[in-house]
Amino acid sequence: MTGLIALDWGSSSLRAFRFDGSGRLAETHSRPWGIRHLPAGGYDAALADVTAGWPALPRLACGMVGSRNGWREMPYLDLPADAARLAGALGAVRAGDGLDVHLVPGLRDPHGPDVMRGEETQLIGALALHPSLAETGSFILPGTHSKWAVVQGGAVTGFRTLMTGELFAVLRQHSMLGASGAETANDAEAFARGVAAARDSGAAGALSRLFSARALMLDGTLAAGSVPDYLSGLLIGEEFRAALADGLARCDTPLHLVGDDALCEHYRRAAALFGIELPPPIADAAAHGLWQLALEADLVQRHPEESPAC
Amino acid sequence: MTGLIALDWGSSSLRAFRFDGSGRLAETHSRPWGIRHLPAGGYDAALADVTAGWPALPRLACGMVGSRNGWREMPYLDLPADAARLAGALGAVRAGDGLDVHLVPGLRDPHGPDVMRGEETQLIGALALHPSLAETGSFILPGTHSKWAVVQGGAVTGFRTLMTGELFAVLRQHSMLGASGAETANDAEAFARGVAAARDSGAAGALSRLFSARALMLDGTLAAGSVPDYLSGLLIGEEFRAALADGLARCDTPLHLVGDDALCEHYRRAAALFGIELPPPIADAAAHGLWQLALEADLVQRHPEESPAC
Repeated sequence: MTGLIALDWGSSSLRAFRFDGSGRLAETHSRPWGIRHLPAGGYDAALADVTAGWPALPRLACGMVGSRNGWREMPYLDLPADAARLAGALGAVRAGDGLDVHLVPGLRDPHGPDVMRGEETQLIGALALHPSLAETGSFILPGTHSKWAVVQGGAVTGFRTLMTGELFAVLRQHSMLGASGAETANDAEAFARGVAAARDSGAAGALSRLFSARALMLDGTLAAGSVPDYLSGLLIGEEFRAALADGLARCDTPLHLVGDDALCEHYRRAAALFGIELPPPIADAAAHGLWQLALEADLVQRHPEESPAC
Repeated sequence: MTGLIALDWGSSSLRAFRFDGSGRLAETHSRPWGIRHLPAGGYDAALADVTAGWPALPRLACGMVGSRNGWREMPYLDLPADAARLAGALGAVRAGDGLDVHLVPGLRDPHGPDVMRGEETQLIGALALHPSLAETGSFILPGTHSKWAVVQGGAVTGFRTLMTGELFAVLRQHSMLGASGAETANDAEAFARGVAAARDSGAAGALSRLFSARALMLDGTLAAGSVPDYLSGLLIGEEFRAALADGLARCDTPLHLVGDDALCEHYRRAAALFGIELPPPIADAAAHGLWQLALEADLVQRHPEESPAC
C-alpha cells in the first residue's frame, strides 16, 4: 500500500484526505476538531479518529496545527516561496502511535509583515491543478482571514491578509450593527448595495461607510434583516477596492478564487460589480497542495500504474 | 428662581446640569443611567434622582433619550441646521411629575444618509462658546461613534459617523486581536506606530492593515500588551486619513475637537502625525448647547443681573 494521509488542520476544523499511490484522492474525513476545539486526548486522539481504518501511510499536515498554539510550532518561511522551498522546510512531530506527522511551515511576507498558515499549501495545490497559472497570477483565498496572494514563476511573492470574515462575525454578533436580532434575509440586492457602497467610497474606504448599515436601516431604506447582507457586501467589496488601490489585484493579471463554493460565490458577485469576471473557484486545493509537497519532499512516490482501488 | 435643567442623556450615561438665570453652570450630576441602563422606575425615576434637590425649572434634554428606543422618538431634522432651526423643532414628553421634558431632535444628513443625536447640541454649544468658529469650521466629536462635522454660517452642513470606538471595543474584546489577554500597556509609541500605519496605507486604507496588529506581534516587534495601543492608533489614524481623503477635513479649514480630555488627547497626538495641530478640546459643549437652544426656544430668559448664588 502506498499513498499519503494529508491533513488540513486549522483553527476550527480538521480534514483528512487519503491519497492512493497514483495521487488520486480516495477518501475524505472531516471533524470539527480545529486546534482550538480538540477532543479529549488532544492531537493524538483526533488523528487516530480521523484516520481510523486507513493504512499506515506517510502523513503531512498544514495549517494552524503548526502554529505557536498548535502541535508543534513551525517557523515561518520568508517569501518568495515555491513548492520546492516549502518541501525543503518541512518539519515533523512524533505522534503517540510512534510515527511522524510531517508539518508544512507557514509563510511570512517581510514587507507587511504578514503571515499565513495553510494558505501556502492551498496555493501550491491551485498551481498543481492549474499549471498555467504558475507564471503570473493573483489569488483570493476567502475566509475568516482572507488572503490575497501574488504568484510569479511558481513562487508566492507577496500577499496580504484581510480580516473580513472575523470582522463580519464580531460586528454581527457584538456591535450595534447586529443589534436588531432579525434573521438574515439572504438579500442579494442588499449585498450588492454594500459592495457598491465600498466601491464608491473612493480613497476614504469602506471603514468610513460602516455606519451606513445602521443609518440606512434607520432611514427605512434597508430592512433590519438585510443589514448583515449589506455589511457582508460592504466588507467583501472593500477587499476588492483596497486590493485594486494597493496593486494586489490588477486589471492585466488573471485573478482566481481558491476555496469553497458558497463563500466564493459571494466574491464572484462582488467582483462582477467591479467589472472583474472571476472563473469558478479552485476546490480541494489544500489536499492537492499537500500531495504536491509530499511528492517534492519524497514522502511519497507517484505510482501511475497502481490500481485506483488500492 | 430662574434657570434651566439641561440633560445630556445618551445610551450609557445621564448627565444633568443646572444653569442659573444668568446662564452660569451652577451644578452637575452624573449617573450611569443611559437609556440602555435605566434604574427601576425608568425615565421618571432617573430624572427625579438626578435632579433631586433642584428647583422646578424648564428641562431640556438631548441625545439618545429622543431616539426610537428612548423616552419619546423625535424625528431627525435634515441638514443644514443651525440653533434657530433646532430650537424651532423641539418636542416634549410629559414626565411623571406632570411637567414637560423638552427634547432636542437629532440631525440627518440626507447625502449619507447619516444621523446624529446629541452631537448637534454639542456643536451648538461649541459655537456658542467660540463664536468665531461659526463662519466656517470642521469639528471632530470623538466617541463610540465619532462624528466629523462641517459648520458653515452657524449651521451644520455635513457630517459623517466613524464607528471607531465601538470597532475598537469589539475587536479588543471579541476578536483574535484581543486574544492575548495581556494588560494594555498604554504604550504611546505603539499608538503612534498604529497612526502611522493608517496614514501610510494610502488609498487602500487601514482596514487592509488591521491584521498587521497580529502579524507585528507574531513577528516579535510589537509586545502583546501594546496591541490595543497600536489598534487604537490605527483606527483613530484611519479617521484622519479617510477624512482628508473625503474632504471632511481640509488643510485650509480650522479643525476643532469637542469632547472629554482623555480621548481628545489621543486625537491630538494622531493629528500631529498628520501635520495637523489641534487646539485643546472644547469641553462642556452639550451643557452649553442645551442652554443656547433653551434661549433660542424661549424656554429661559437670560437675567444677567441675577445673583450667581441663586
